Amino acid sequence: MIRENLIRQIKQKGTCLCVGLDTDAAKLPLNLKGKPNAILEFNKQIIEATANLCVAYKINTAFYECLGAPGWEIMEETLSYIPKGIFTIADAKRGDIGNTSERYAKAFFERLNFDAITVSPYMGGDSVKPFLEFKNKVTIVLALTSNVGSADFEQLKTGDKYLYEQVLSTSQQWGTIENMMYVVGATKAEALMTIREIVPHHFLLIPGVGAQGGNLQDVLKYGAIKDEVGLLINSSRQILYASNGEDFAEKARDEAKKYLH
Amino acid sequence: MIRENLIRQIKQKGTCLCVGLDTDAAKLPLNLKGKPNAILEFNKQIIEATANLCVAYKINTAFYECLGAPGWEIMEETLSYIPKGIFTIADAKRGDIGNTSERYAKAFFERLNFDAITVSPYMGGDSVKPFLEFKNKVTIVLALTSNVGSADFEQLKTGDKYLYEQVLSTSQQWGTIENMMYVVGATKAEALMTIREIVPHHFLLIPGVGAQGGNLQDVLKYGAIKDEVGLLINSSRQILYASNGEDFAEKARDEAKKYLH
Repeated sequence: MIRENLIRQIKQKGTCLCVGLDTDAAKLPLNLKGKPNAILEFNKQIIEATANLCVAYKINTAFYECLGAPGWEIMEETLSYIPKGIFTIADAKRGDIGNTSERYAKAFFERLNFDAITVSPYMGGDSVKPFLEFKNKVTIVLALTSNVGSADFEQLKTGDKYLYEQVLSTSQQWGTIENMMYVVGATKAEALMTIREIVPHHFLLIPGVGAQGGNLQDVLKYGAIKDEVGLLINSSRQILYASNGEDFAEKARDEAKKYLH
Repeated sequence: MIRENLIRQIKQKGTCLCVGLDTDAAKLPLNLKGKPNAILEFNKQIIEATANLCVAYKINTAFYECLGAPGWEIMEETLSYIPKGIFTIADAKRGDIGNTSERYAKAFFERLNFDAITVSPYMGGDSVKPFLEFKNKVTIVLALTSNVGSADFEQLKTGDKYLYEQVLSTSQQWGTIENMMYVVGATKAEALMTIREIVPHHFLLIPGVGAQGGNLQDVLKYGAIKDEVGLLINSSRQILYASNGEDFAEKARDEAKKYLH
Protein backbone atom coordinates (compact mmCIF):
# COMPACT_ATOMS: atom_id res chain seq x y z
CA MET A 1 0.00 0.00 0.00
CA ILE A 2 2.61 2.53 1.09
CA ARG A 3 5.00 1.52 -1.69
CA GLU A 4 2.28 1.66 -4.35
CA ASN A 5 1.10 5.04 -3.11
CA LEU A 6 4.66 6.40 -3.13
CA ILE A 7 5.31 5.23 -6.67
CA ARG A 8 2.02 6.77 -7.82
CA GLN A 9 2.83 10.09 -6.16
CA ILE A 10 6.34 10.17 -7.60
CA LYS A 11 4.87 9.74 -11.09
CA GLN A 12 2.04 12.23 -10.61
CA LYS A 13 4.20 14.93 -9.09
CA GLY A 14 7.27 14.24 -11.24
CA THR A 15 9.64 14.29 -8.27
CA CYS A 16 11.09 12.03 -5.60
CA LEU A 17 11.83 14.93 -3.28
CA CYS A 18 11.68 14.41 0.47
CA VAL A 19 11.78 17.70 2.37
CA GLY A 20 13.80 17.42 5.55
CA LEU A 21 12.30 19.43 8.40
CA ASP A 22 15.54 19.94 10.35
CA THR A 23 14.20 23.20 11.71
CA ASP A 24 16.72 25.21 13.66
CA ALA A 25 15.42 28.10 15.81
CA ALA A 26 18.66 30.02 15.19
CA LYS A 27 18.19 29.93 11.42
CA LEU A 28 14.57 31.06 11.21
CA PRO A 29 13.68 33.98 8.95
CA LEU A 30 13.91 37.35 10.68
CA ASN A 31 10.15 37.93 10.68
CA LEU A 32 9.55 34.77 12.69
CA LYS A 33 12.62 34.63 14.90
CA GLY A 34 11.88 34.81 18.61
CA LYS A 35 8.09 34.74 18.17
CA PRO A 36 6.04 32.16 20.10
CA ASN A 37 5.37 29.08 17.98
CA ALA A 38 7.96 30.32 15.46
CA ILE A 39 9.17 26.80 14.59
CA LEU A 40 5.65 25.52 14.14
CA GLU A 41 4.65 28.51 11.99
CA PHE A 42 7.80 28.06 9.91
CA ASN A 43 7.13 24.33 9.39
CA LYS A 44 3.51 25.06 8.48
CA GLN A 45 4.48 27.58 5.81
CA ILE A 46 7.23 25.35 4.43
CA ILE A 47 4.77 22.45 4.19
CA GLU A 48 2.11 24.59 2.48
CA ALA A 49 4.68 25.86 -0.01
CA THR A 50 6.16 22.48 -0.90
CA ALA A 51 3.42 19.86 -0.42
CA ASN A 52 2.62 19.51 -4.12
CA LEU A 53 6.33 19.46 -5.04
CA CYS A 54 7.43 16.60 -2.78
CA VAL A 55 6.34 13.08 -1.91
CA ALA A 56 7.70 12.87 1.63
CA TYR A 57 8.64 14.89 4.72
CA LYS A 58 11.43 13.76 7.00
CA ILE A 59 11.47 15.14 10.52
CA ASN A 60 14.89 14.99 12.12
CA THR A 61 14.06 14.22 15.73
CA ALA A 62 17.27 15.75 17.14
CA PHE A 63 16.10 19.26 16.21
CA TYR A 64 12.95 18.77 18.30
CA GLU A 65 14.39 16.74 21.18
CA CYS A 66 16.81 19.53 21.97
CA LEU A 67 13.71 21.58 22.94
CA GLY A 68 12.58 18.95 25.47
CA ALA A 69 8.91 18.03 25.95
CA PRO A 70 7.65 21.09 23.98
CA GLY A 71 9.78 19.84 21.06
CA TRP A 72 7.79 16.61 21.02
CA GLU A 73 4.58 18.62 20.91
CA ILE A 74 5.91 20.65 17.97
CA MET A 75 6.77 17.40 16.17
CA GLU A 76 3.25 16.11 16.79
CA GLU A 77 1.62 19.34 15.55
CA THR A 78 3.93 19.56 12.54
CA LEU A 79 2.75 16.10 11.49
CA SER A 80 -0.84 17.34 11.60
CA TYR A 81 -0.02 19.95 8.90
CA ILE A 82 1.26 17.34 6.46
CA PRO A 83 -1.48 16.48 3.94
CA LYS A 84 -2.75 12.89 4.14
CA GLY A 85 -1.05 10.58 1.64
CA ILE A 86 2.37 12.24 1.82
CA PHE A 87 4.93 9.84 3.30
CA THR A 88 6.27 10.86 6.73
CA ILE A 89 9.65 9.77 8.07
CA ALA A 90 10.99 10.08 11.62
CA ASP A 91 14.69 10.47 11.02
CA ALA A 92 15.53 9.12 14.46
CA LYS A 93 18.28 6.54 13.80
CA ARG A 94 17.11 4.42 16.71
CA GLY A 95 17.99 0.80 17.51
CA ASP A 96 18.31 -1.17 20.75
CA ILE A 97 17.64 -4.65 22.15
CA GLY A 98 14.28 -6.13 21.16
CA ASN A 99 11.94 -4.98 23.93
CA THR A 100 13.44 -1.47 23.75
CA SER A 101 13.23 -1.17 19.97
CA GLU A 102 9.57 -2.11 20.33
CA ARG A 103 9.12 0.98 22.54
CA TYR A 104 10.78 3.20 19.97
CA ALA A 105 8.49 1.71 17.33
CA LYS A 106 5.48 2.50 19.50
CA ALA A 107 6.75 6.05 20.06
CA PHE A 108 7.09 6.84 16.37
CA PHE A 109 4.58 4.51 14.66
CA GLU A 110 1.74 4.66 17.20
CA ARG A 111 2.12 7.73 19.40
CA LEU A 112 3.31 10.09 16.65
CA ASN A 113 1.90 8.03 13.75
CA PHE A 114 4.83 8.44 11.37
CA ASP A 115 4.80 6.16 8.30
CA ALA A 116 8.50 5.37 8.63
CA ILE A 117 11.53 5.58 10.89
CA THR A 118 15.27 5.42 10.22
CA VAL A 119 17.18 2.83 12.30
CA SER A 120 20.83 1.98 12.89
CA PRO A 121 21.81 -1.59 12.00
CA TYR A 122 24.82 -1.80 14.35
CA MET A 123 23.15 -4.06 16.95
CA GLY A 124 21.86 -6.48 14.31
CA GLY A 125 18.64 -8.20 13.28
CA ASP A 126 16.86 -8.45 16.62
CA SER A 127 17.27 -4.69 17.13
CA VAL A 128 15.56 -3.92 13.79
CA LYS A 129 12.89 -6.61 13.55
CA PRO A 130 10.58 -5.12 16.23
CA PHE A 131 10.10 -2.11 13.93
CA LEU A 132 9.28 -4.39 11.00
CA GLU A 133 6.47 -6.06 12.89
CA PHE A 134 4.26 -2.96 12.66
CA LYS A 135 1.73 -3.24 9.82
CA ASN A 136 1.69 -0.57 7.09
CA LYS A 137 4.86 1.02 8.45
CA VAL A 138 8.31 1.26 6.88
CA THR A 139 11.69 0.75 8.53
CA ILE A 140 14.57 2.55 6.85
CA VAL A 141 17.92 0.93 7.65
CA LEU A 142 21.13 3.00 7.56
CA ALA A 143 23.54 1.48 5.05
CA LEU A 144 25.98 4.02 3.62
CA THR A 145 25.76 7.52 5.07
CA SER A 146 26.97 10.72 3.46
CA ASN A 147 29.33 11.95 6.19
CA VAL A 148 33.13 11.69 6.27
CA GLY A 149 32.92 9.29 9.21
CA SER A 150 31.27 6.66 6.99
CA ALA A 151 34.86 5.65 6.14
CA ASP A 152 35.52 4.62 9.77
CA PHE A 153 33.31 1.51 9.88
CA GLU A 154 30.65 1.48 7.12
CA GLN A 155 33.34 1.31 4.46
CA LEU A 156 35.55 -1.27 6.18
CA LYS A 157 35.89 -4.59 4.40
CA THR A 158 34.27 -7.56 6.11
CA GLY A 159 35.43 -10.48 3.97
CA ASP A 160 34.97 -9.45 0.34
CA LYS A 161 32.25 -6.90 1.06
CA TYR A 162 32.17 -3.47 2.65
CA LEU A 163 30.28 -3.43 5.94
CA TYR A 164 27.47 -1.35 4.39
CA GLU A 165 27.13 -3.94 1.62
CA GLN A 166 26.94 -6.68 4.25
CA VAL A 167 24.23 -4.67 6.01
CA LEU A 168 22.28 -4.53 2.72
CA SER A 169 22.69 -8.29 2.16
CA THR A 170 21.95 -9.54 5.65
CA SER A 171 19.05 -7.21 6.35
CA GLN A 172 17.11 -8.32 3.28
CA GLN A 173 16.19 -11.44 5.22
CA TRP A 174 14.52 -9.31 7.88
CA GLY A 175 11.87 -7.49 5.85
CA THR A 176 10.33 -7.05 2.42
CA ILE A 177 10.48 -4.42 -0.32
CA GLU A 178 7.17 -3.18 1.11
CA ASN A 179 8.27 -2.56 4.70
CA MET A 180 12.00 -1.87 4.41
CA MET A 181 14.08 0.83 2.73
CA TYR A 182 17.71 1.91 3.00
CA VAL A 183 19.60 5.14 3.62
CA VAL A 184 22.33 5.56 1.04
CA GLY A 185 24.44 8.72 0.99
CA ALA A 186 24.54 10.46 -2.37
CA THR A 187 28.05 11.82 -2.05
CA LYS A 188 29.01 8.48 -3.62
CA ALA A 189 26.47 8.34 -6.47
CA GLU A 190 28.56 5.83 -8.41
CA ALA A 191 28.35 3.43 -5.45
CA LEU A 192 24.60 3.24 -6.23
CA MET A 193 25.35 0.85 -9.13
CA THR A 194 26.84 -1.76 -6.80
CA ILE A 195 24.11 -1.08 -4.27
CA ARG A 196 21.41 -1.69 -6.88
CA GLU A 197 23.00 -5.09 -7.63
CA ILE A 198 22.49 -6.03 -3.98
CA VAL A 199 19.09 -4.36 -3.47
CA PRO A 200 17.49 -4.09 -6.92
CA HIS A 201 13.95 -3.44 -5.67
CA HIS A 202 14.08 -1.59 -2.34
CA PHE A 203 13.41 2.12 -2.05
CA LEU A 204 16.51 4.12 -1.20
CA LEU A 205 16.42 7.29 0.88
CA ILE A 206 19.22 9.52 -0.36
CA PRO A 207 20.38 12.31 1.91
CA GLY A 208 23.23 14.58 0.97
CA VAL A 209 21.87 16.01 -2.29
CA GLY A 210 22.18 19.71 -1.56
CA ALA A 211 24.00 21.04 1.48
CA GLN A 212 26.01 17.85 1.86
CA GLY A 213 27.01 17.70 -1.84
CA GLY A 214 25.88 15.00 -4.31
CA ASN A 215 24.24 15.34 -7.70
CA LEU A 216 20.56 14.82 -8.55
CA GLN A 217 21.11 13.57 -12.08
CA ASP A 218 23.77 11.06 -11.02
CA VAL A 219 21.51 9.75 -8.30
CA LEU A 220 18.65 9.22 -10.75
CA LYS A 221 20.98 7.68 -13.33
CA TYR A 222 22.62 5.17 -11.00
CA GLY A 223 19.89 4.63 -8.43
CA ALA A 224 16.45 4.59 -10.10
CA ILE A 225 14.45 1.39 -10.51
CA LYS A 226 12.90 1.02 -13.96
CA ASP A 227 9.19 2.05 -13.95
CA GLU A 228 9.12 2.42 -10.16
CA VAL A 229 11.87 5.01 -9.53
CA GLY A 230 12.38 3.65 -5.99
CA LEU A 231 14.15 6.73 -4.70
CA LEU A 232 13.47 9.39 -2.10
CA ILE A 233 15.89 12.26 -2.45
CA ASN A 234 16.15 14.34 0.66
CA SER A 235 16.95 18.01 0.86
CA SER A 236 16.81 19.92 4.12
CA ARG A 237 18.86 23.08 4.62
CA GLN A 238 18.93 24.05 0.93
CA ILE A 239 15.12 24.30 0.94
CA LEU A 240 14.43 25.46 4.51
CA TYR A 241 16.94 28.29 4.50
CA ALA A 242 16.75 29.40 0.86
CA SER A 243 15.96 32.87 2.21
CA ASN A 244 15.87 34.38 5.68
CA GLY A 245 13.44 37.08 4.61
CA GLU A 246 9.65 37.11 4.54
CA ASP A 247 9.84 35.34 1.17
CA PHE A 248 11.32 32.18 2.74
CA ALA A 249 8.36 29.95 1.78
CA GLU A 250 8.36 31.19 -1.80
CA LYS A 251 12.12 30.67 -2.09
CA ALA A 252 11.78 27.22 -0.52
CA ARG A 253 9.25 26.42 -3.23
CA ASP A 254 11.69 27.59 -5.91
CA GLU A 255 14.34 25.27 -4.49
CA ALA A 256 11.91 22.35 -4.35
CA LYS A 257 11.14 22.88 -8.05
CA LYS A 258 14.76 22.10 -8.88
CA TYR A 259 14.02 18.48 -7.95
CA LEU A 260 11.34 18.02 -10.63
CA HIS A 261 12.57 15.44 -13.09
CA MET B 1 36.20 14.99 37.82
CA ILE B 2 33.39 12.60 36.82
CA ARG B 3 35.79 9.65 36.60
CA GLU B 4 37.39 10.43 39.97
CA ASN B 5 34.00 10.84 41.60
CA LEU B 6 32.78 7.54 40.13
CA ILE B 7 35.83 5.65 41.38
CA ARG B 8 35.44 7.17 44.83
CA GLN B 9 31.76 6.23 44.99
CA ILE B 10 32.42 2.68 43.80
CA LYS B 11 34.93 2.26 46.63
CA GLN B 12 32.76 3.91 49.29
CA LYS B 13 29.59 2.04 48.39
CA GLY B 14 31.33 -1.24 47.52
CA THR B 15 29.42 -1.67 44.28
CA CYS B 16 29.54 -0.71 40.62
CA LEU B 17 25.81 -1.15 40.18
CA CYS B 18 23.97 1.02 37.69
CA VAL B 19 20.19 0.77 38.10
CA GLY B 20 18.41 0.85 34.75
CA LEU B 21 15.15 2.79 34.91
CA ASP B 22 13.43 1.01 32.00
CA THR B 23 10.07 1.66 33.59
CA ASP B 24 7.19 -0.05 31.86
CA ALA B 25 3.65 1.08 32.75
CA ALA B 26 2.36 -2.46 32.14
CA LYS B 27 4.73 -3.96 34.72
CA LEU B 28 4.11 -1.54 37.60
CA PRO B 29 3.18 -2.95 41.01
CA LEU B 30 -0.55 -3.42 41.49
CA ASN B 31 -0.87 -0.62 44.05
CA LEU B 32 0.45 1.95 41.55
CA LYS B 33 -0.89 0.62 38.27
CA GLY B 34 -3.24 3.01 36.51
CA LYS B 35 -2.76 5.85 39.01
CA PRO B 36 -1.80 9.33 37.75
CA ASN B 37 1.97 9.84 37.94
CA ALA B 38 2.39 6.10 38.57
CA ILE B 39 5.67 5.88 36.63
CA LEU B 40 7.11 8.90 38.39
CA GLU B 41 6.06 7.61 41.82
CA PHE B 42 7.55 4.20 41.00
CA ASN B 43 10.85 5.74 39.86
CA LYS B 44 10.97 7.92 42.97
CA GLN B 45 10.53 4.98 45.30
CA ILE B 46 13.04 2.84 43.38
CA ILE B 47 15.59 5.66 43.57
CA GLU B 48 15.01 6.21 47.30
CA ALA B 49 15.40 2.47 47.94
CA THR B 50 18.58 2.00 45.90
CA ALA B 51 20.49 5.31 45.97
CA ASN B 52 23.03 4.21 48.56
CA LEU B 53 23.48 0.82 46.86
CA CYS B 54 24.35 2.04 43.38
CA VAL B 55 26.67 4.55 41.71
CA ALA B 56 24.64 5.30 38.59
CA TYR B 57 21.15 5.41 37.12
CA LYS B 58 20.54 4.70 33.47
CA ILE B 59 17.33 5.98 31.93
CA ASN B 60 16.35 4.10 28.81
CA THR B 61 14.81 6.83 26.68
CA ALA B 62 12.61 4.46 24.64
CA PHE B 63 10.43 3.73 27.66
CA TYR B 64 9.68 7.45 28.03
CA GLU B 65 9.49 8.44 24.36
CA CYS B 66 6.69 5.95 23.80
CA LEU B 67 4.61 8.21 26.08
CA GLY B 68 5.21 11.27 23.88
CA ALA B 69 5.82 14.75 25.33
CA PRO B 70 4.61 13.72 28.85
CA GLY B 71 7.28 11.00 28.76
CA TRP B 72 9.95 13.66 28.36
CA GLU B 73 8.55 15.47 31.37
CA ILE B 74 8.65 12.25 33.41
CA MET B 75 12.31 11.77 32.40
CA GLU B 76 13.08 15.33 33.48
CA GLU B 77 11.34 14.91 36.85
CA THR B 78 12.89 11.49 37.44
CA LEU B 79 16.31 13.08 37.08
CA SER B 80 15.42 15.58 39.80
CA TYR B 81 14.93 12.69 42.26
CA ILE B 82 18.43 11.32 41.72
CA PRO B 83 20.75 12.54 44.50
CA LYS B 84 23.53 14.87 43.35
CA GLY B 85 26.80 13.06 42.72
CA ILE B 86 25.24 9.86 41.37
CA PHE B 87 26.15 9.37 37.71
CA THR B 88 23.22 9.68 35.28
CA ILE B 89 23.14 8.02 31.87
CA ALA B 90 20.71 8.63 29.02
CA ASP B 91 20.61 5.23 27.33
CA ALA B 92 19.59 6.76 24.03
CA LYS B 93 21.92 5.10 21.49
CA ARG B 94 21.91 8.21 19.32
CA GLY B 95 24.26 9.15 16.48
CA ASP B 96 23.88 11.19 13.29
CA ILE B 97 25.83 13.61 11.08
CA GLY B 98 27.73 16.28 13.01
CA ASN B 99 25.23 19.14 13.26
CA THR B 100 22.50 16.67 14.21
CA SER B 101 24.55 14.84 16.85
CA GLU B 102 25.21 18.25 18.36
CA ARG B 103 21.43 18.67 18.81
CA TYR B 104 21.15 15.31 20.52
CA ALA B 105 24.02 16.30 22.79
CA LYS B 106 22.19 19.54 23.66
CA ALA B 107 18.98 17.58 24.31
CA PHE B 108 20.58 15.20 26.79
CA PHE B 109 23.56 17.14 28.20
CA GLU B 110 22.01 20.62 28.41
CA ARG B 111 18.25 20.39 28.36
CA LEU B 112 17.97 17.24 30.53
CA ASN B 113 21.41 17.63 32.14
CA PHE B 114 22.41 13.96 32.06
CA ASP B 115 26.08 13.22 32.84
CA ALA B 116 26.36 10.72 30.00
CA ILE B 117 24.70 9.35 26.88
CA THR B 118 25.08 6.09 24.96
CA VAL B 119 25.83 6.50 21.23
CA SER B 120 26.00 4.18 18.23
CA PRO B 121 29.34 4.17 16.40
CA TYR B 122 27.99 3.02 13.02
CA MET B 123 28.28 6.42 11.29
CA GLY B 124 31.87 6.94 12.50
CA GLY B 125 33.96 9.59 14.22
CA ASP B 126 32.22 12.76 13.09
CA SER B 127 28.91 11.40 14.40
CA VAL B 128 30.36 10.83 17.89
CA LYS B 129 32.76 13.75 18.31
CA PRO B 130 30.05 16.43 18.79
CA PHE B 131 29.05 14.63 22.01
CA LEU B 132 32.67 14.59 23.19
CA GLU B 133 32.96 18.35 22.88
CA PHE B 134 30.73 18.94 25.91
CA LYS B 135 32.77 19.61 29.05
CA ASN B 136 32.29 17.37 32.10
CA LYS B 137 30.08 15.00 30.16
CA VAL B 138 30.69 11.39 29.17
CA THR B 139 29.98 9.69 25.85
CA ILE B 140 29.44 5.94 26.05
CA VAL B 141 30.11 4.23 22.72
CA LEU B 142 28.40 0.93 21.86
CA ALA B 143 31.02 -1.73 21.21
CA LEU B 144 29.77 -5.25 21.90
CA THR B 145 26.12 -5.52 22.88
CA SER B 146 24.49 -8.41 24.76
CA ASN B 147 21.78 -9.32 22.26
CA VAL B 148 21.79 -12.23 19.79
CA GLY B 149 21.94 -9.76 16.87
CA SER B 150 25.44 -8.67 17.94
CA ALA B 151 26.60 -11.61 15.80
CA ASP B 152 25.22 -9.98 12.63
CA PHE B 153 27.71 -7.11 12.33
CA GLU B 154 29.51 -6.35 15.63
CA GLN B 155 31.14 -9.78 15.56
CA LEU B 156 32.07 -9.79 11.88
CA LYS B 157 35.78 -9.84 11.13
CA THR B 158 37.19 -6.68 9.55
CA GLY B 159 40.75 -7.68 8.74
CA ASP B 160 42.15 -9.49 11.80
CA LYS B 161 39.77 -7.81 14.25
CA TYR B 162 36.08 -8.12 15.02
CA LEU B 163 34.14 -5.00 14.13
CA TYR B 164 33.53 -4.23 17.83
CA GLU B 165 37.28 -4.47 18.46
CA GLN B 166 37.86 -2.08 15.57
CA VAL B 167 35.32 0.29 17.13
CA LEU B 168 37.27 0.16 20.40
CA SER B 169 40.59 0.82 18.64
CA THR B 170 39.50 3.57 16.28
CA SER B 171 37.35 5.45 18.77
CA GLN B 172 40.15 5.84 21.30
CA GLN B 173 41.51 8.59 19.08
CA TRP B 174 38.26 10.53 19.50
CA GLY B 175 38.15 11.01 23.27
CA THR B 176 39.92 10.36 26.55
CA ILE B 177 39.47 7.99 29.48
CA GLU B 178 37.75 10.91 31.20
CA ASN B 179 35.05 11.62 28.64
CA MET B 180 34.53 8.27 26.91
CA MET B 181 33.30 4.84 28.05
CA TYR B 182 32.15 1.73 26.22
CA VAL B 183 29.13 -0.54 26.31
CA VAL B 184 30.23 -4.16 26.48
CA GLY B 185 27.65 -6.93 26.83
CA ALA B 186 28.28 -9.29 29.72
CA THR B 187 26.87 -12.39 28.08
CA LYS B 188 30.44 -12.82 26.80
CA ALA B 189 32.39 -12.15 30.04
CA GLU B 190 35.48 -13.95 28.72
CA ALA B 191 35.61 -11.48 25.82
CA LEU B 192 36.37 -8.82 28.45
CA MET B 193 40.00 -10.04 28.61
CA THR B 194 40.63 -9.19 24.98
CA ILE B 195 38.67 -5.99 25.36
CA ARG B 196 40.83 -4.94 28.32
CA GLU B 197 43.92 -5.42 26.14
CA ILE B 198 42.49 -2.86 23.70
CA VAL B 199 40.99 -0.47 26.28
CA PRO B 200 42.92 -1.00 29.51
CA HIS B 201 41.79 2.23 31.20
CA HIS B 202 38.29 3.15 29.99
CA PHE B 203 35.20 2.57 32.07
CA LEU B 204 32.96 -0.16 30.67
CA LEU B 205 29.18 -0.11 31.01
CA ILE B 206 28.06 -3.72 31.22
CA PRO B 207 24.41 -4.47 30.49
CA GLY B 208 23.07 -7.99 30.49
CA VAL B 209 23.93 -9.00 34.04
CA GLY B 210 20.54 -10.13 35.26
CA ALA B 211 17.56 -10.53 32.94
CA GLN B 212 19.79 -10.85 29.88
CA GLY B 213 22.12 -13.45 31.50
CA GLY B 214 25.79 -12.85 32.38
CA ASN B 215 27.62 -13.36 35.64
CA LEU B 216 28.71 -10.68 38.12
CA GLN B 217 31.83 -12.47 39.38
CA ASP B 218 33.07 -13.21 35.84
CA VAL B 219 32.56 -9.60 34.87
CA LEU B 220 34.58 -8.37 37.85
CA LYS B 221 37.29 -11.00 37.28
CA TYR B 222 37.81 -10.29 33.59
CA GLY B 223 36.79 -6.65 33.38
CA ALA B 224 37.96 -4.73 36.46
CA ILE B 225 40.85 -2.24 36.33
CA LYS B 226 43.29 -2.61 39.25
CA ASP B 227 42.62 0.03 41.96
CA GLU B 228 40.01 1.83 39.84
CA VAL B 229 37.46 -0.94 39.07
CA GLY B 230 36.41 0.88 35.90
CA LEU B 231 33.09 -0.90 35.56
CA LEU B 232 29.43 0.03 35.69
CA ILE B 233 27.27 -3.05 35.88
CA ASN B 234 23.72 -2.41 34.83
CA SER B 235 20.65 -4.20 36.06
CA SER B 236 17.16 -3.10 35.09
CA ARG B 237 14.27 -5.56 35.11
CA GLN B 238 15.71 -7.79 37.84
CA ILE B 239 15.65 -4.85 40.26
CA LEU B 240 12.60 -2.89 39.05
CA TYR B 241 10.25 -5.85 38.96
CA ALA B 242 11.57 -7.90 41.87
CA SER B 243 8.04 -7.77 43.27
CA ASN B 244 4.73 -6.47 41.92
CA GLY B 245 3.34 -5.99 45.41
CA GLU B 246 3.50 -3.01 47.74
CA ASP B 247 6.94 -4.25 48.85
CA PHE B 248 8.43 -3.56 45.40
CA ALA B 249 10.91 -0.94 46.66
CA GLU B 250 12.10 -3.16 49.50
CA LYS B 251 12.54 -6.11 47.15
CA ALA B 252 14.34 -3.88 44.65
CA ARG B 253 16.72 -2.95 47.46
CA ASP B 254 17.31 -6.63 48.24
CA GLU B 255 18.18 -7.25 44.58
CA ALA B 256 20.53 -4.25 44.52
CA LYS B 257 22.37 -5.66 47.55
CA LYS B 258 23.36 -8.71 45.48
CA TYR B 259 25.70 -6.42 43.55
CA LEU B 260 27.79 -5.47 46.60
CA HIS B 261 31.31 -6.81 46.09
